[in-house]
Amino acid sequence: MKAIYFDGKKAELISARKPRLRAGESLIRIDTAGLCATDLEILLGYLEFRGILGHEFVGTVESSENESLAGKRVVGEIFVPCRECPACRESLEKHCPERTVIGISGRDGVFARYVALPDENLHVIPDSLTDEVAIFVELLAAACEITQRVSFRKESRVIVLGDGRLAAMTAQVAALHARDPVVLGLNKKKLSAFEAVGLRTEIVENRDRIGKDFDIVVECTGKPNGLPLAIELVKPQGTVILKSTYHGNLEWNPAPIVINEISVVGSRCGPFEEALDLLKRGKIETSPFLTAVYGLEDFDKAVQRARHSDSFKVLIRP
Amino acid sequence: MKAIYFDGKKAELISARKPRLRAGESLIRIDTAGLCATDLEILLGYLEFRGILGHEFVGTVESSENESLAGKRVVGEIFVPCRECPACRESLEKHCPERTVIGISGRDGVFARYVALPDENLHVIPDSLTDEVAIFVELLAAACEITQRVSFRKESRVIVLGDGRLAAMTAQVAALHARDPVVLGLNKKKLSAFEAVGLRTEIVENRDRIGKDFDIVVECTGKPNGLPLAIELVKPQGTVILKSTYHGNLEWNPAPIVINEISVVGSRCGPFEEALDLLKRGKIETSPFLTAVYGLEDFDKAVQRARHSDSFKVLIRP
Repeated sequence: MKAIYFDGKKAELISARKPRLRAGESLIRIDTAGLCATDLEILLGYLEFRGILGHEFVGTVESSENESLAGKRVVGEIFVPCRECPACRESLEKHCPERTVIGISGRDGVFARYVALPDENLHVIPDSLTDEVAIFVELLAAACEITQRVSFRKESRVIVLGDGRLAAMTAQVAALHARDPVVLGLNKKKLSAFEAVGLRTEIVENRDRIGKDFDIVVECTGKPNGLPLAIELVKPQGTVILKSTYHGNLEWNPAPIVINEISVVGSRCGPFEEALDLLKRGKIETSPFLTAVYGLEDFDKAVQRARHSDSFKVLIRP
Repeated sequence: MKAIYFDGKKAELISARKPRLRAGESLIRIDTAGLCATDLEILLGYLEFRGILGHEFVGTVESSENESLAGKRVVGEIFVPCRECPACRESLEKHCPERTVIGISGRDGVFARYVALPDENLHVIPDSLTDEVAIFVELLAAACEITQRVSFRKESRVIVLGDGRLAAMTAQVAALHARDPVVLGLNKKKLSAFEAVGLRTEIVENRDRIGKDFDIVVECTGKPNGLPLAIELVKPQGTVILKSTYHGNLEWNPAPIVINEISVVGSRCGPFEEALDLLKRGKIETSPFLTAVYGLEDFDKAVQRARHSDSFKVLIRP
């Protein structure tokens, strides 16, 4: 099968062997895959991964011992935990130190015709959702996790920092739990997509207009200055939710966390079922945040497009 | 009256005017004062303060319109809020943006014969507590705040980073709420004082012996590398309580907060009544953490002693 293989330096279209199934795994034919910020970081050499790239996918189960999965359209959770260590026994499978992660760590990914994944990782997609909507499940699940880690109230003053695809999902989730959150971004054109789905926005240089003292600040910029800005905007004893990571160091003094008694809460992946449910009920808009679709053979162009400052989600069709 | 005045460059013994009382304030004769890390930072020019230094004190109310205070031995909360702004109305007086702070910001401090403070700030000391014990109230109150900000359970695995006076109080508070917390420090001699009060300790270079995956890590080192070390020792979805501040920047990537979904909770000043109650009930040991006592005229020597790596609390007798 054709696949995009990363050798530590460059990604190339190769002819790879079809994945062999281990016990409890299904074989999934990839229909649509999504490029994510983590893929772009791997391509820059920031992670140790070698193998077939990609982890966001919508596919069809081509072979499975599980009858409820065979032939179904699915999305899949990306972590494959050992299910034996203390973390796994405490239901913290996503923090299993022995985990593999498709397309990120120790396991081939989805920029290919096929991928193998344990049945437990798979979630059947309702027929009403197109591939182009369902591809947002993994990202939206990560967005949903903010309300699992921090209590939102309707009257909470919430601000989301960032104008990318993670911010797009996160701000919409925030709007389901708090009244009129505001999105603070750099790019006017991208912010107009947020406005199209009914979100209030402001451009960073005019942030004085929106004031400070937010109860909850959600940091989705993926930039080193995101955390200090979040700390500047949150009220004393308020909460900063840190969602985005980036390469390189931040040079900064964390004293304001102590002085203003702020909580900084890290949040990563989230519940697929909740994300599927929100999409099925039409609670989240995805179409303004879909930028382009490329074939596997145009992977380099897809990457270039995904890196462009105006882009949201770029899809790959194997 | 004699007082230690800081002019932005140096601290000098001066002859100052006795404080004039504003409405609702009492005049307190200082019996014992304590040198704190913040005083040492002010002396290094790291804060903007100009005036009489010092904020930890035990004193006797010499004149007050409040009959329940007149003639009593007291300790005092250091913040004087405006009591009118949104923060004050939300019971967040310690975060009042208009606040003054004795010996730190906009208000003369306690390295002097007298200080003036609002009656609301004063707490009467039970007769059973000596000055040398009661001087720890402000520091112990800050330590007590950890359990107000984060839920401790008996079975929580807790580690306190640091071997100074704040760590000494914090570790003892932690030991009241969790079984057998461990203190990780740099200085063997200081750690022996922790052991003398029944705390388990370990030296930083042998930290492999105590393992990782702590539920709660309390950072009291006052050093830039304290936070990264705390993040290294806490378990996924665990909590780091940040208590200490320092001057200068930390160069660091906060990605592990996201990846391991850690909560970093800032904690500052705390409840005086709880601290007084713990001391009265003999729940906290202070004597191993008292290093020396100096007169006002020996202030420079007191500062030198407080800066010494073997020192805990240094007192000043005006």
